[in-house]
Amino acid sequence: MPQKIVKLTVKDVRFPTSLGQHGSDAMHTDPDYSVAYVVIETDGGMKGYGLTFTVGRGTEVVVCAVKALSGFVVGKTLEEIVGDFRGFYRLLTSDGQMRWIGPEKGVIQLATAAVLNAVWDLWARAEGKSPEQLVSCIDFRYITDALTEQEALDLLRKAQTGKTEREEQMLKEGYPAYTTSCAWLGYSDQQLTQLCTDALASGWSRFKVKVGAELEDDERRCRLIRQMIGPDKTLMMDANQRWDVGEAISWVTSLAPFRPLWIEEPTSPDDILGHATISKALAPLGIGVASGEQCHNRVMFKQFLQASALQFVQIDSCRLGSVNENLAVLLMAHKFQVPVCPHAGGVGLCELVQHLILFDYISVSADLNNRMCEYVDHLHEHFTSPVVIRNAHYLPPKDPGYSCEMLESSVETHQFPGGEVWANLLAKAPE
Amino acid sequence: MPQKIVKLTVKDVRFPTSLGQHGSDAMHTDPDYSVAYVVIETDGGMKGYGLTFTVGRGTEVVVCAVKALSGFVVGKTLEEIVGDFRGFYRLLTSDGQMRWIGPEKGVIQLATAAVLNAVWDLWARAEGKSPEQLVSCIDFRYITDALTEQEALDLLRKAQTGKTEREEQMLKEGYPAYTTSCAWLGYSDQQLTQLCTDALASGWSRFKVKVGAELEDDERRCRLIRQMIGPDKTLMMDANQRWDVGEAISWVTSLAPFRPLWIEEPTSPDDILGHATISKALAPLGIGVASGEQCHNRVMFKQFLQASALQFVQIDSCRLGSVNENLAVLLMAHKFQVPVCPHAGGVGLCELVQHLILFDYISVSADLNNRMCEYVDHLHEHFTSPVVIRNAHYLPPKDPGYSCEMLESSVETHQFPGGEVWANLLAKAPE
Repeated sequence: MPQKIVKLTVKDVRFPTSLGQHGSDAMHTDPDYSVAYVVIETDGGMKGYGLTFTVGRGTEVVVCAVKALSGFVVGKTLEEIVGDFRGFYRLLTSDGQMRWIGPEKGVIQLATAAVLNAVWDLWARAEGKSPEQLVSCIDFRYITDALTEQEALDLLRKAQTGKTEREEQMLKEGYPAYTTSCAWLGYSDQQLTQLCTDALASGWSRFKVKVGAELEDDERRCRLIRQMIGPDKTLMMDANQRWDVGEAISWVTSLAPFRPLWIEEPTSPDDILGHATISKALAPLGIGVASGEQCHNRVMFKQFLQASALQFVQIDSCRLGSVNENLAVLLMAHKFQVPVCPHAGGVGLCELVQHLILFDYISVSADLNNRMCEYVDHLHEHFTSPVVIRNAHYLPPKDPGYSCEMLESSVETHQFPGGEVWANLLAKAPE
Repeated sequence: MPQKIVKLTVKDVRFPTSLGQHGSDAMHTDPDYSVAYVVIETDGGMKGYGLTFTVGRGTEVVVCAVKALSGFVVGKTLEEIVGDFRGFYRLLTSDGQMRWIGPEKGVIQLATAAVLNAVWDLWARAEGKSPEQLVSCIDFRYITDALTEQEALDLLRKAQTGKTEREEQMLKEGYPAYTTSCAWLGYSDQQLTQLCTDALASGWSRFKVKVGAELEDDERRCRLIRQMIGPDKTLMMDANQRWDVGEAISWVTSLAPFRPLWIEEPTSPDDILGHATISKALAPLGIGVASGEQCHNRVMFKQFLQASALQFVQIDSCRLGSVNENLAVLLMAHKFQVPVCPHAGGVGLCELVQHLILFDYISVSADLNNRMCEYVDHLHEHFTSPVVIRNAHYLPPKDPGYSCEMLESSVETHQFPGGEVWANLLAKAPE
């Protein structure tokens, strides 16, 4: 029986993380981790949950954009949508009027992600998708010079070999993760030392540190971490777009003695040629370049790959146009043989992206070399099916859906500005 | 006496242009030309008018984003803002929370343009800006590998020579323009013939035609126009992002017999490397590639120039971050010796961009070779100081300000959805 979507609601939900400097980096000094939280409902009483991640102010703009997209969703059946998912994707991203305010970037693409994440959540309850079905979800417009539909299908069919074994392996071992929780820029050395000690005790072997504000601070913090984790464990650095191209090269060269695997977001997320220049300069030092959490669509990822500008592709479940666009990027990355190491953390990003990276291993890349998924240890308690981490690995989610349903009580108390948490905080604010 | 900005208002103003197929192209088939219209007011009673252009649905999202930026503007004096305009620009574009929903792209950058256009309008009433003042408005972050502050200053100082003569020339002759009004995609051949006849009679010698939906239609329409305008006048073609890279090359090759000066927006506005490939392929045919109306920031323009991906740079007064970011692009284009031919039309884009292109000629490039500014002949009647076109040239505006103040009656009747025009149309709508 077809499920007709009869309602879409969207809420502005914010967590006051800036109070503890959680999530702080060189460019985002006081983030309040937030989501535009979408619930779609069918006439048959089914619900789909979706979200996109934001960092506080501006969430209301994304909420407004979700409302603007709502008319494309409400009134359609799930069968109509997934029966021509590419067409539906294009309806949302290429409407003759709405596309002007993008196209396929920024606020409107974040809103598209939130809406489509909810559609995928609804769809995910029905199991088993063939390579043909998956390819039919991808909009190949603007990427056929790098990946055609036929190539995509061939890659997926080829990866059917060994799929069952990889599924079993993942259920047993989980997918390797790294932690960003120890070394936010706003943390003191003492806090950093404590968190690092705890993480080592819990079995973590891959650590990311925020850099880019002051070189001396970076050197001190990187030395501290490298000393604590020893020479054999993995260290990554993240500058969150702080530098210009030349500055990135010289700054990272100064930090090379601490042997980072990658430097993440050394400059503008739009600067493909800049990243290529940085990659080339840092290659002799054995340092790769990673980026993607603010890479706004598949056309940008295509060029990063074409230009050999990235050695690590960091997909994001909420920046790109949901599973549809992430599939395109996973397949292109596989074709170009660049490892995918997803961006996560935020609110619900771990919950969402675990599905994508497990799919990547099981059904696309069949490779774990130089691959790992980011993990940040906060705000999971607000989800009905939070991620399960065991021995620094993501264990595959077992509940049906896309894992981003939040607890009703969490949504209610954190709605901005009326929920209890914000009402209290705003009452205490200086002005 | 310092002027403190005490109020910012923003309105959603739409014109039902889709009813007459004005503005229709291969990707925007039914645009309702619209603006997010901003008015700032000082405690001294001065007003600044700004806008950004949109094409209908989604304007409400830009309005929401302008409201989100409003807190950065209200309470500041004009002197504070222009005294550190680079800092103010960065405040709007790099706020630690708001930047997540961009950064510097899409909805939030359109909103930034609307707000800053109003600030420039306010400031423009005070005459005479030195090269040093202008350079101090530019955020050089992410572009220093292509243009440093010192280089920018040198370029501006060098162009002081002959400035008075060029000013006099412009006042006498005006800046050369081309027309897009004759050949929107939705127009019939008869309509096209009539409009082209009229334009020739009014002295136009440069014409743009929309292409990209059906090759046979394009061939027929291009043949018709080329026959009407003769072999010596200039024809440009605009595909509005309709093609993938390979398709663009083969399609334009088919249209080469009609001798276009450029093909505009052959593919995704984000595809720098794609544009470079197309440029290289079309160079032997004597056809250049033009793009820019959806190029979202200076970092993208930098790369288009670095990669020799464009032969014509089409700045936009409302897509980029106002005069500040357009200055950066004008200076980079001059350094790379690529002509600037601004995008205009829409609502108020001609009124705004005439200032930028006159500045480019008088104070930066000192060159008219292969340069012209787009002109579209509608909606000017809604402005208090509409552009003046004489013999296919823009005559320099004489009223103080940035020329985007609209008639109060126009704003009132076209507000969406409550204004008289929309109330009537929506009452008549089928659903």
